[in-house]
Amino acid sequence: MISELQTVRIDELSLDSGEVLRDVAVAYETYGRLNERKSNAILILHAFTGDAHAAGVDKDGKDGWWSSMIGPGKAFDTDRYFVLCSNVLGGCRGTTGPSSPDPATGKPYAMGFPVITIGDMVRLQHRLVESLGISQLLAVSGGSMGGMQALEWAVAFPESVYACIPIATTGRHTAQQIAFNEVGRQAIVADPDFHAGSYYESKPPARGLAVARMVGHITYMSDDSMREKFGRRLRGREEFSYGFDADFEVESYLRYRGSQFVGRFDANSYLYITKAMDYFDLTAGYGSLGASLERAKCRFLVISFTSDWLYPSYQSLEIVNALRSRNHDVTYCELSSSYGHDAFLVDVTHQTGIVRGFLARCERELEAAR
Amino acid sequence: MISELQTVRIDELSLDSGEVLRDVAVAYETYGRLNERKSNAILILHAFTGDAHAAGVDKDGKDGWWSSMIGPGKAFDTDRYFVLCSNVLGGCRGTTGPSSPDPATGKPYAMGFPVITIGDMVRLQHRLVESLGISQLLAVSGGSMGGMQALEWAVAFPESVYACIPIATTGRHTAQQIAFNEVGRQAIVADPDFHAGSYYESKPPARGLAVARMVGHITYMSDDSMREKFGRRLRGREEFSYGFDADFEVESYLRYRGSQFVGRFDANSYLYITKAMDYFDLTAGYGSLGASLERAKCRFLVISFTSDWLYPSYQSLEIVNALRSRNHDVTYCELSSSYGHDAFLVDVTHQTGIVRGFLARCERELEAAR
Repeated sequence: MISELQTVRIDELSLDSGEVLRDVAVAYETYGRLNERKSNAILILHAFTGDAHAAGVDKDGKDGWWSSMIGPGKAFDTDRYFVLCSNVLGGCRGTTGPSSPDPATGKPYAMGFPVITIGDMVRLQHRLVESLGISQLLAVSGGSMGGMQALEWAVAFPESVYACIPIATTGRHTAQQIAFNEVGRQAIVADPDFHAGSYYESKPPARGLAVARMVGHITYMSDDSMREKFGRRLRGREEFSYGFDADFEVESYLRYRGSQFVGRFDANSYLYITKAMDYFDLTAGYGSLGASLERAKCRFLVISFTSDWLYPSYQSLEIVNALRSRNHDVTYCELSSSYGHDAFLVDVTHQTGIVRGFLARCERELEAAR
Repeated sequence: MISELQTVRIDELSLDSGEVLRDVAVAYETYGRLNERKSNAILILHAFTGDAHAAGVDKDGKDGWWSSMIGPGKAFDTDRYFVLCSNVLGGCRGTTGPSSPDPATGKPYAMGFPVITIGDMVRLQHRLVESLGISQLLAVSGGSMGGMQALEWAVAFPESVYACIPIATTGRHTAQQIAFNEVGRQAIVADPDFHAGSYYESKPPARGLAVARMVGHITYMSDDSMREKFGRRLRGREEFSYGFDADFEVESYLRYRGSQFVGRFDANSYLYITKAMDYFDLTAGYGSLGASLERAKCRFLVISFTSDWLYPSYQSLEIVNALRSRNHDVTYCELSSSYGHDAFLVDVTHQTGIVRGFLARCERELEAAR
């Protein structure tokens, strides 16, 4: 399956901050075919550092980040469904973000980019979906920050969503989740190459961004999966170095993943997107998760993973219980996995069966309701 | 209770790395009085960023880091026991470390300081204890890295320890624990003010050290205690700033604690001491915890805390089960607390009763055995 990045442009987008963004690009990919009634579209929402390349193989031969879940015969079966995924607002992979040129100056926005929210991301996606002539999505789904967007879709555009599948996510960040993001931001801002975000004509704050990514990686894995993958194994040596080179495999892995990340992600996007996650609060303006989710009109499949300590199961249960308190149609699955938060990306066997069954039911009911 | 920092000097100390340190200073404090038989001494071992000032009030009016546990009528009752605590080797609070002058050059060792181990720290403490004419300690105790030292004492100097109280600790660091330390080290090394450790005549790598400390703080607290202390409360504002100032209280707290740390801790000590923790492996050279702990001759009280995810209870249980496998005298208490790893410092009510009872039993048995 070959995937191709497409782009639409939106004249202007009003933001939660009160600012207005003009000439906004939205980069997206699609897989499978939209049926005549346009009733088989599924919008996939990516996590923090993901992008529009969710499935298939791109022109560089790179697999999509959720290729395990999207494709012919897979959970999001492209023989049945028309699947689309767009890079989020504020991103750095084709959709307008801080590294994009500001139409007013022709130079990158940098820190002149307005602070954005999960709500802004979703409103832009809604414009994309409208531009494709789709009035209702069969489903919205994503893990982590993708799950936040899925929940926001259900509440902000209740008529446009038939089913919602938030995975390994939360209705709002806790102090601990904000704290981890803040450490990453401070690592970037502390890098003298950051230059208050205006580094596009010099060099990026590579060291700060790498440290931020290292923190992230630890939170994405579990104690068990790190033990399994690295343990206390030494790297290319039998004895301690008694120096500050990487002694342990886990050290060199983190250093490698940190430095590798710098080549594919923009430090300003790191700041803006983490801020959007921290601001996200489904209860804001409603007083409770229940009151907020009361607006939703879709059925829900909520999934979490036992070893995910970054978005622990209790946060999914808060969503589930809020949905139940409003008598919504909700299925909850806590899946057993040792992979931590990464499980929604890498441990997909059970997730596949559950999503497939849920989507088949949704299709059937939607058909019956016609 | 007024406490006073004292110093002894040791001519030379052989290290696990094979290097030899000369003219080593050991800074320590003592509380209570050594009895005539010198049988009532308790050595307290401090955690990573602690120091010799464990109890009482120092000349600057500052309370000791374990004043809640050490003093008249407290768990480590200074009316009964002679309590001492020394700054660890590699530290920056009076004991020789990378910021100390190298006798060969008169200038700070900086990164010329040899890499040290928990074993080296303990051998230096043993020299201090010997210098005070104490042949056997009634007890050794500490939390976190202090617990590692307590365990090392029991194995390395079995004749010199009557009882061992390791708290919230482990027999060896897991990949996750190494990973968190490595992030802190990389944050320091990434700071251009680091200058390969030779920053004593310029300015310290303050931004990197602050980021390292921020990561540490998150791991010392629990999800629950952060929610309790900060939640999603905004700092001095009612609305989001839609900017990159600290919006949330947890952000400004972390920034404050990070910057405050720079004034009291040396970045090179951060590197050396975290490396010593990562190298620590009680099984090394023995093959298993049981084989290693077989050397010990003391009785053990092992304590862990339910919400401590940095040194989770299962790591204490590994120690306890290894001790049981060799038929050692061991009591294990997993205490309920929401304070995370910090619990051993701040949630001491139950810990106090348990330690006090254990020490009274040890005293009684030691007396009966005379």
